[in-house]
Amino acid sequence: MLEIVTIGDELLLGQTIDTNAAFLGEQLAAAGLRVTRRTTVGDDAENITDAVTHALRRAGTVICTGGLGPTRDDFTKPVVAKLYGRELVLHEDLLEKARARWQKRGLVMPESNRTQAEVPAGALILPNRLGTAPGIVLDDPSLGLTLMLPGVPHELRALTVREVVPLLLARTAQRDNPICYRVVRVTGIPESALAERIEDIVDAMSPLAVAFLPNAAGVDLRITSWGLFDAAECDARFTVAEAHLRARLGAHVYAVGSEAIEAVVGRMLLARQLQLALAESCTGGLLGQRITSVSGASAYFAGGLITYADRLKIDLLGVHAETLSEHGAVSEATAREMAAGAAARTGAQAAISITGIAGPTGGTPDKPVGLVWTAVSLNDVVSSRSFVVPGDRAEIRERAAQMGLALLYEMLVTPSPVP
Amino acid sequence: MLEIVTIGDELLLGQTIDTNAAFLGEQLAAAGLRVTRRTTVGDDAENITDAVTHALRRAGTVICTGGLGPTRDDFTKPVVAKLYGRELVLHEDLLEKARARWQKRGLVMPESNRTQAEVPAGALILPNRLGTAPGIVLDDPSLGLTLMLPGVPHELRALTVREVVPLLLARTAQRDNPICYRVVRVTGIPESALAERIEDIVDAMSPLAVAFLPNAAGVDLRITSWGLFDAAECDARFTVAEAHLRARLGAHVYAVGSEAIEAVVGRMLLARQLQLALAESCTGGLLGQRITSVSGASAYFAGGLITYADRLKIDLLGVHAETLSEHGAVSEATAREMAAGAAARTGAQAAISITGIAGPTGGTPDKPVGLVWTAVSLNDVVSSRSFVVPGDRAEIRERAAQMGLALLYEMLVTPSPVP
Repeated sequence: MLEIVTIGDELLLGQTIDTNAAFLGEQLAAAGLRVTRRTTVGDDAENITDAVTHALRRAGTVICTGGLGPTRDDFTKPVVAKLYGRELVLHEDLLEKARARWQKRGLVMPESNRTQAEVPAGALILPNRLGTAPGIVLDDPSLGLTLMLPGVPHELRALTVREVVPLLLARTAQRDNPICYRVVRVTGIPESALAERIEDIVDAMSPLAVAFLPNAAGVDLRITSWGLFDAAECDARFTVAEAHLRARLGAHVYAVGSEAIEAVVGRMLLARQLQLALAESCTGGLLGQRITSVSGASAYFAGGLITYADRLKIDLLGVHAETLSEHGAVSEATAREMAAGAAARTGAQAAISITGIAGPTGGTPDKPVGLVWTAVSLNDVVSSRSFVVPGDRAEIRERAAQMGLALLYEMLVTPSPVP
Repeated sequence: MLEIVTIGDELLLGQTIDTNAAFLGEQLAAAGLRVTRRTTVGDDAENITDAVTHALRRAGTVICTGGLGPTRDDFTKPVVAKLYGRELVLHEDLLEKARARWQKRGLVMPESNRTQAEVPAGALILPNRLGTAPGIVLDDPSLGLTLMLPGVPHELRALTVREVVPLLLARTAQRDNPICYRVVRVTGIPESALAERIEDIVDAMSPLAVAFLPNAAGVDLRITSWGLFDAAECDARFTVAEAHLRARLGAHVYAVGSEAIEAVVGRMLLARQLQLALAESCTGGLLGQRITSVSGASAYFAGGLITYADRLKIDLLGVHAETLSEHGAVSEATAREMAAGAAARTGAQAAISITGIAGPTGGTPDKPVGLVWTAVSLNDVVSSRSFVVPGDRAEIRERAAQMGLALLYEMLVTPSPVP
């Protein structure tokens, strides 16, 4: 068992969203290491001491993140060193490395960075190739194991994968069954309707646990074995469960695991040697951002046109002025002309268009906030669809992007064109 | 004092990033309510009971989020009801409202949703206009106050603003000084270099606390009074501190508060009646997404061209084929032609271009991963800049977008053109 303690006033004040905790949880779970609790405290010696002490008592192993920086509000290291009764010792080699990093950038290291080369006596140092604060491990039979990691996200991620997970796996005796799970990603069905539709399948999975996780992309079904079976048995049971879900839900299942629909669609486009283009209005580039978040997207993504102003829908995409005046910018006709125009202007075989009312203003009784039209042109066949999606501006935009991707996905998996 | 308990296996497993906790922290801090700790536990009755019990003992008031849904993995409500020794009672009016919500969408309510109309006896109900699970408040002099909120982000946000903050403020005696803070947002200087440059100013702010919060946009300086002074005195001290920081840091200070640079730039464009266009390569739409995340962006944002494929840089933006063959797609010459082309093709007076190597592949010794060129065309004057930015693919893209926005910001605040 292990717990995570994340440290920083900015986390409690909500100025920073704790993405590190999510990354750690994901990597540790994938390695079969169960995180049983996460505690967040501010930059305060007493609270850090209390949280780490209690977490160690409950779980025996604690990972701390944050508070290792060079500024005076960073004091995880002295606090934990004191808890373990250790002095801080300056490591000349760490100091040299830090100086070299600054020199490489043509800069002189500020003296305040010296503290980053100080490490509690007897600690194990986890080398940080991406920054100056190393990971630090303290071990004491009477207290337990504490790992301190820097809060800078890309440093934390690299240290977790290269150092923390291998270290914890090496220390964990292999006596227990692993935690295993499989996630089946569903789009286009509300959570409670989905729950009713697959109730018998969920019952049949027992003693596996099934969790329903709604998100802007749809609902993720997480099927978990909390150490009930060995890995092979888990895999066999997950495969049966997944087959039942796919048979019941068809193209509503768009992925298994953590893969996003943009990655799934990307693989299909690549396999068929199709180029994709976009025409975005209310999403303003969000759909392009999602597609290009996948490394290697340049193999199938040509580009897109963000036509926020109506005149650009005419000038850049060839939407007819009469279509806009008769049906409006948020309409099926406009969405279809946008998709066809994006394909024509870029020479791509596939194109997605999105036009909608993201709010909070701009809604009317006929066209409320949340109304989204999306169209897909695939080899000159155009399909379109609309929904009134719930949520605030950011969620409406996320769901609109998802709708466009889901429509393309369905057209790619369906042998004949979607009517 | 109050604590937050967020509930859900998906949070510990890292499948969901805990944005609710950040939102709650932000809203409560703004109201002067100090969150002293946050605990995250899984969907497990024993752990929920333990976490809520200890949080109540430490702080007296606890806000729980999540686990109020209609599916069988949701059991915050029965667990907390049991802790308070209360029975669950079906509320017919809540049931009717839920049925009406489903009918409005042309659907029949699944029976599993009935549990969402059950409330512990004697609880205060916080009406949820956006969903079927209401907020629930339990109070007991010997235990303390527990508020349970649904985990769906837009429902939680609405309930927090409309119900939770007013309720907690009404219960808090006004005997103490508030927590006040001001955030000064800085871009273009690394954290430790910034710390040295303003060390004397930070010292002079004592007893106010100053925290350095690095992020993809730069470094936020948060100046905090933890209940030291009344609101007027805090405001006066913050104003002096801010003036000193602005005098030292100049255009590196781009905002005060939580305002993003895209909102700051948007206000400036609107005031000068300038239209903005974009030409994005490695960011793939991210910059457009950021600009259009600001409600009202349509008043100054015309649109953009996502030219991921080089042939679209030529076809859609008019970049010269020779520029691409001689200098490459990631070069100053290409960035400048992209910005000029975006302005020309859209008729906008301002245009930002971004081209870079987001990685993880595609780097060379001459042009490493992280190399970004950005250019801004403002009334036909073009400026350009490059950096090698650190981080993974997502962070490089975020920083690239920030670089483009920062360059436009500097050109807008500088009386004469930036050379």
